[in-house]
Amino acid sequence: MNVQISVIGASNPPPQAILAAESVGRELAQKGAVLVTGGLGGIMEAASKGARQVGGTTIGILPGSDPKEANPYVDIAICTGMGYARNIIVVKSGQAVIAIDGAFGTLSEIGHALGDGIPIVALNTWTITKAGSEDKTMIIAKTPKDAVNKAIEAAYGGQANPSGKRNIE
Amino acid sequence: MNVQISVIGASNPPPQAILAAESVGRELAQKGAVLVTGGLGGIMEAASKGARQVGGTTIGILPGSDPKEANPYVDIAICTGMGYARNIIVVKSGQAVIAIDGAFGTLSEIGHALGDGIPIVALNTWTITKAGSEDKTMIIAKTPKDAVNKAIEAAYGGQANPSGKRNIE
Amino acid sequence: MNVQISVIGASNPPPQAILAAESVGRELAQKGAVLVTGGLGGIMEAASKGARQVGGTTIGILPGSDPKEANPYVDIAICTGMGYARNIIVVKSGQAVIAIDGAFGTLSEIGHALGDGIPIVALNTWTITKAGSEDKTMIIAKTPKDAVNKAIEAAYGGQANPSGKRNIE
Amino acid sequence: MNVQISVIGASNPPPQAILAAESVGRELAQKGAVLVTGGLGGIMEAASKGARQVGGTTIGILPGSDPKEANPYVDIAICTGMGYARNIIVVKSGQAVIAIDGAFGTLSEIGHALGDGIPIVALNTWTITKAGSEDKTMIIAKTPKDAVNKAIEAAYGGQANPSGKRNIE
Repeated sequence: MNVQISVIGASNPPPQAILAAESVGRELAQKGAVLVTGGLGGIMEAASKGARQVGGTTIGILPGSDPKEANPYVDIAICTGMGYARNIIVVKSGQAVIAIDGAFGTLSEIGHALGDGIPIVALNTWTITKAGSEDKTMIIAKTPKDAVNKAIEAAYGGQANPSGKRNIE
Repeated sequence: MNVQISVIGASNPPPQAILAAESVGRELAQKGAVLVTGGLGGIMEAASKGARQVGGTTIGILPGSDPKEANPYVDIAICTGMGYARNIIVVKSGQAVIAIDGAFGTLSEIGHALGDGIPIVALNTWTITKAGSEDKTMIIAKTPKDAVNKAIEAAYGGQANPSGKRNIE
Repeated sequence: MNVQISVIGASNPPPQAILAAESVGRELAQKGAVLVTGGLGGIMEAASKGARQVGGTTIGILPGSDPKEANPYVDIAICTGMGYARNIIVVKSGQAVIAIDGAFGTLSEIGHALGDGIPIVALNTWTITKAGSEDKTMIIAKTPKDAVNKAIEAAYGGQANPSGKRNIE
Repeated sequence: MNVQISVIGASNPPPQAILAAESVGRELAQKGAVLVTGGLGGIMEAASKGARQVGGTTIGILPGSDPKEANPYVDIAICTGMGYARNIIVVKSGQAVIAIDGAFGTLSEIGHALGDGIPIVALNTWTITKAGSEDKTMIIAKTPKDAVNKAIEAAYGGQANPSGKRNIE
């Protein structure tokens, strides 16, 4: 198995988030990661498009029962029929998660990732604060390239792994 | 049907959050609301205990398959066997949600509630910020009584309803 | 907690199955059991109606997100938003299950119950056969009263329990 | 996207079912189908092994949260954390389903497939009967090759499609 990295974000993001997602998808594929998303539009589609431009493999975990609802850059469609409960599956199926921009669904996914101890890299997404102090559990990235490097590093437990094999095996 | 209000929060909260949850449960039951929680310890148990002290009805939506994992104040145990994917069911089964304190699971539930358009009342829980400005979608409460009043009001679409019937019927 | 018994069956059953479901609901409530169903029409509605006629408590575990989709005899609506994946929650939330008539959804629920080791009582429902021999794992009942007696007995592990407390505590 | 075919069956099947599953996996991959299974042992592992022997792509939809629980022939691991509720996702993610042998979990999957209108091909699995007459909704196959041909044909709505593109696009 190759390392699997999930990219999360909303269906209707601002244009610069779309560009960032495309870069993230491209960089992930170039490093040999399989891309996991929620399979719909916006960030999900842009990341999948980026990955496919360089020959990457893309998985779309859909809320509905019809593979036709996947964006055109999804190679493998997983039909859950479970609505937004599928968010948790998107998160769990990555060895690390990259959140780009994002609406409330992305916030729920951030909560799931943090709760499950799955490394999550934040690229211009939510900041979460409790009792006046910011939670520092998310890994902050400044650029798409930085986000991908940090996600891959986190997926391998902090060790570079040029073999392309994931550390969990 | 009576109005159903969900109370969310973590298994290991600080002592004063426990006291707040017990008050919230008691107030909700006194107003005729059915209490929905995740059925385990901490905030979930304290709210259920409060509700039962005044004769309320309590529902526990459990992550596992064994009703024995419910706290002793749960009247009706719903066994999902779906792990933390049950969080979304807790949120969806309330006409409003009250978040008390809370860890990452609570953050995921806040995301689900906001995404679903279910009114959510915040009592010393997460603050969420994007692009430097705080999201104002949560309803802020200062005391347990305030939280309950705001949740009941929100559940009825802003109209007091002394009959105890919910507005959605 | 009172014992919880799940009744499963289809939305469009023949008239005599409706009558049987109503009797089953009534008998369960008279024995102090809480009724769990999928909350929609047909067998689910008839069993809930029977239970309510004698003051029983009824839980409806819905496929959607709107409590208004519950039939009018449901006291507590659990909104899963997970479509037919909610079938497994209906089954798991009973200490025993009674299947009446039934279409393919009921077949999936029978499979879940048998797989989970939850006692399942069959009243004019599917017969399942493998390699030419009928599976004898379901408990066959001939009348609604017989089905209820067998379900309650199975829920208590074969021992009558006149106290109304369930054996799992 | 290539056509996706799901193979369902138990973890502890008899030896000849293992051989059949391996053949089914091999034939599916040779026809360009992506194999979807529940990702664990027995039928799931044998089908995945067969597919990989000839260079096929294999998806494992796991009940748990750890990709390491997948059998060694799974290329892409989907971690649901939802226990046996994942059965429904296995079924929904195929344009057709092949059931080989099988225990009660397989019976639940057959029920889901029939309920969803997903073509299901039976190879020495359950026979289901209601009111004394056998349900004829499953497609009966006699050999692994026959099962694969019938599944592919059903996935394409009865039309052969040598291009390897699926009909739903």
